[in-house]
Amino acid sequence: MTLLEKQQQHDFVLVDLMKNEQKSEEHLKRHPFGVIPVLKDGDFELYESRAIIRYLDHKFTNNPLTPKDLESFGRMEQWMGIEQAYFSEQALKIIKQCYFGKMRGQTPDMSIVAEAKPKVEHVLDVANAALSKHPYFAGDSFSLAEITWMPYVEYLFSAEMGDLINKRSHVKKWWENISKRPTWQKVRG
Amino acid sequence: MTLLEKQQQHDFVLVDLMKNEQKSEEHLKRHPFGVIPVLKDGDFELYESRAIIRYLDHKFTNNPLTPKDLESFGRMEQWMGIEQAYFSEQALKIIKQCYFGKMRGQTPDMSIVAEAKPKVEHVLDVANAALSKHPYFAGDSFSLAEITWMPYVEYLFSAEMGDLINKRSHVKKWWENISKRPTWQKVRG
Repeated sequence: MTLLEKQQQHDFVLVDLMKNEQKSEEHLKRHPFGVIPVLKDGDFELYESRAIIRYLDHKFTNNPLTPKDLESFGRMEQWMGIEQAYFSEQALKIIKQCYFGKMRGQTPDMSIVAEAKPKVEHVLDVANAALSKHPYFAGDSFSLAEITWMPYVEYLFSAEMGDLINKRSHVKKWWENISKRPTWQKVRG
Repeated sequence: MTLLEKQQQHDFVLVDLMKNEQKSEEHLKRHPFGVIPVLKDGDFELYESRAIIRYLDHKFTNNPLTPKDLESFGRMEQWMGIEQAYFSEQALKIIKQCYFGKMRGQTPDMSIVAEAKPKVEHVLDVANAALSKHPYFAGDSFSLAEITWMPYVEYLFSAEMGDLINKRSHVKKWWENISKRPTWQKVRG
């Protein structure tokens, strides 16, 4: 999504998680922790998704995704931190059981879901309060913070947990607004 | 440490983890996830440590802790990502058992330590390889990436796990270099 927002040509190379390719010897040379994504920019290689999108936003100065205003910048970073520290790990527990597991024909373990769900609800309550004050996490503009959250929110809908979003009016409005961006529509397809 | 590197006057307000004050009603108003730290800068409040140090480095432009060179910037961000995603969570498991637990008079659960230790070793192997190429995570200069790692490395020594550092020559040299900074000596005291 960051590359599309920046209107940058790129090749997307699939590392197939369904085949566990992220743990292959070839991929471990690119990413010693055996996960995705990795960016290859000429001879320079970089891993960790949040590092990659910050790097891209620094490199390509068109359509900036980092606010110049200092407090907005701080809020963007805070919400990227919240995503990594409190949101995505818990959301992924639900997504793995209710979406990826089901795709593999497994029965979801609802005790895992029951433990993760209140934690996700709490983060979304905090998000709802913040988004009642300004339309984006950083403030007045779409930023990298939204990009870090979007895959997990989308997958919550895939896991039939869209109610978590829709019952919080400010989060709902935020999601409706950002998910209709043409770049997201292209990425999710 | 960031405030000291920036030579900024500040008041340090203790939230006593030993008394569980981070979960008090008063603190939860400042930090809805009940952890530390929180920055109060005039009327602006910010939580999430990595957001706070980036905010401070943006606000105070003296003694920059973010490299201007693009690839160095990418590496700094990658190593901050590695700290949060792979290093500190595992290191903290060891530190809680072998340091904080002991301070509270508890017997360490060595099965938790045995599970976390190889994961910490792996991260430190990756760090050792990177630090064989340049003296700091970002490249030629001390950056925010070091600051995010330092508390956990220091606590590994407190947990009598300093061998994890000292048996890796490049990590050892890196630690000896950065831990003698006057700002760190002041902070750890």
